Amino acid sequence: MRIVIAPSGFKESLTADEVAAMIARGVRRVVPDARIDPLPLVDGGEGSAAALARATGGRLVPRRTTGPTGRPVPSHYAVMGGPGPRTAVVEMAATAGLRLVPPDARDPGRTTTAGVGELIRAALDGGARRILVGCGDSGTSDGGAGALRALGARLLDAAGNDLPDGGAALARLDRIDPSGLDPRLRRTDLLVACNPWNVLCGENGVARVYGPQKGATPGQAVMLDGALCRWADVLERDLGAPAGLDLRTGPGTGASGGLGAGLAAAGARLLPRFEVLLRHVDLDGLLARADLVITAEGAIDRQTSRGKIPAEVARRAKRYGKPVLALAGTIGPDAHTVYGSGIDAFAGILPAPVDLAEALSRSAEFLADGAERALRMVLLGTALTA
Amino acid sequence: MRIVIAPSGFKESLTADEVAAMIARGVRRVVPDARIDPLPLVDGGEGSAAALARATGGRLVPRRTTGPTGRPVPSHYAVMGGPGPRTAVVEMAATAGLRLVPPDARDPGRTTTAGVGELIRAALDGGARRILVGCGDSGTSDGGAGALRALGARLLDAAGNDLPDGGAALARLDRIDPSGLDPRLRRTDLLVACNPWNVLCGENGVARVYGPQKGATPGQAVMLDGALCRWADVLERDLGAPAGLDLRTGPGTGASGGLGAGLAAAGARLLPRFEVLLRHVDLDGLLARADLVITAEGAIDRQTSRGKIPAEVARRAKRYGKPVLALAGTIGPDAHTVYGSGIDAFAGILPAPVDLAEALSRSAEFLADGAERALRMVLLGTALTA
Repeated sequence: MRIVIAPSGFKESLTADEVAAMIARGVRRVVPDARIDPLPLVDGGEGSAAALARATGGRLVPRRTTGPTGRPVPSHYAVMGGPGPRTAVVEMAATAGLRLVPPDARDPGRTTTAGVGELIRAALDGGARRILVGCGDSGTSDGGAGALRALGARLLDAAGNDLPDGGAALARLDRIDPSGLDPRLRRTDLLVACNPWNVLCGENGVARVYGPQKGATPGQAVMLDGALCRWADVLERDLGAPAGLDLRTGPGTGASGGLGAGLAAAGARLLPRFEVLLRHVDLDGLLARADLVITAEGAIDRQTSRGKIPAEVARRAKRYGKPVLALAGTIGPDAHTVYGSGIDAFAGILPAPVDLAEALSRSAEFLADGAERALRMVLLGTALTA
Repeated sequence: MRIVIAPSGFKESLTADEVAAMIARGVRRVVPDARIDPLPLVDGGEGSAAALARATGGRLVPRRTTGPTGRPVPSHYAVMGGPGPRTAVVEMAATAGLRLVPPDARDPGRTTTAGVGELIRAALDGGARRILVGCGDSGTSDGGAGALRALGARLLDAAGNDLPDGGAALARLDRIDPSGLDPRLRRTDLLVACNPWNVLCGENGVARVYGPQKGATPGQAVMLDGALCRWADVLERDLGAPAGLDLRTGPGTGASGGLGAGLAAAGARLLPRFEVLLRHVDLDGLLARADLVITAEGAIDRQTSRGKIPAEVARRAKRYGKPVLALAGTIGPDAHTVYGSGIDAFAGILPAPVDLAEALSRSAEFLADGAERALRMVLLGTALTA
């Protein structure tokens, strides 16, 4: 039996690599001679650079950068291995992630993506001809203003003074001076892996949707939304936007607190995250040869079929007619909606009543055991037809 | 597809009937046209009389009896339907169960099985030719002394006075006067459904093993053990014991606080509980025709393969080569040992971190959903071989 194990990480407990390893452990207890193709997957957020480096035989390049609150943080970008143009991965969460913002400093009007610009610059210095920017798990809402400034743009108020860091200050933006922008950007293929559902402005814009979880009050969220709309206006006027993309409401413009919009104005292409990320692993090739596909996610719920990894894996597996089993740390509301995305069956992994802390701390053990139990049920089914 | 659903109840939350109904609900969501044979099973303890009445098209007969603490309690016995001799079921827990002993009255030296004798008498009055006594979930440790007295025996001390109720008083037992014992007992087939692992006396005797959970201190447990040994001596001398059965250490003599020993001396046959209970339902016939067998238990753990319902069902299913799936409210220590008893796969039903109270209160919903998920995994397996 040939089994592809293509899971997401379990947020707060296991990386995608760890998830794949635990599932494989459980599977081997039942089918010791199965051929297992592990393919841990990432969605652009935390851990994506490391995972893509591993998946392609590349490496991580450590780099000290400006963190989201303006203080230096240790960070990194990845250089991918494999054929094709020299490609770097800049994971925005590695320099501007929510986890890097101390709880008492969670003011999304002030945090900055400066480190993202610094990492892009470092990747260019390292000879990258193509740069993937992974979005997700951000702690910023500056529309990518900090990143553009770190790449050489100047953001000026009506008096010609540079604006301070953060999204809130963009309400006072008068014009952008792009003359200092790194000229290498124009010769570089800059791809941003986005959740296309995230847009920059308005009722569904990032300030209102994600601002509160980044620390904004409702009033701050509305003000920040206004500042980001001003940012979009000036970006379009002074830098321009890719043909056909409205920087306010276009798909992905709101990715990572609006980083999508800022980078798009600097020439990046915003692409659905799985198109970008799966391009570098041979998921389709593995699926075509699989007898069974196992995926996993920390929680399977009504969000899963809206572009989460298990649903994406299942949709692709179904092109080859392959059965898909999903494992979940937690089964949440409306989990049955995932059946529509091609997942044939899913299982929880909790053996007994436990609190969240125990569920997280024992998730590796629970996952291996849960994978074993699930595979035994699948095998029972094979006997049923015999 | 033809599916036998043969579960145990979930202690503290669902009866076996409810468990079977919830599993059927989950199964039907996946295979609406499956032919389902529900066969809720009981082990002799709480709910057994009602379940056997339902399974055979019989009825419950309400009867007020002496409860374990001596106060009257509403109780019942069952008259089974179907062919064969008129058969009654006396569930000892319905008149002497632990649940009928208030926590502040939990003294296993004083509680009595008088109600069991009263129910046997009532069944005889009702014309029963065969009586099954179901053991399990008892709140007594009187060796069945109360039951024998209610059936007409006198238990006398050296001064010729009747002993008070309870197992502790048996230390002062001088002799038994059996002359008043109900003569119909001799013409009646009295069967006691026992866990054969339960014995009356000694280190593994009921007083020491179960006394503490019925409220005895370690010292009381030792004294009670001595009293039960005296009881066995006098029973053998004055009433006799079935050939080959040592009332102190024979299989089932300790069932329900020694009720097995007392009834055996009065002519009952002690039988392994599943041999007795399954005789009245057509489990074998259903198993032989099944494509899939689903069983269930509140907890699957290292005890399961020692004579619990899922293990018994699985052993029988394996005689017909049928695949067996087990569902569990909780997966406990060494649960994997059940694979040895013929269970091919088992699944937990908890979707998310919950405390015990929530797990119990939502067990019906969790079970139906868990059954659905498990069946989808089984069906996925059938696709795997296609």
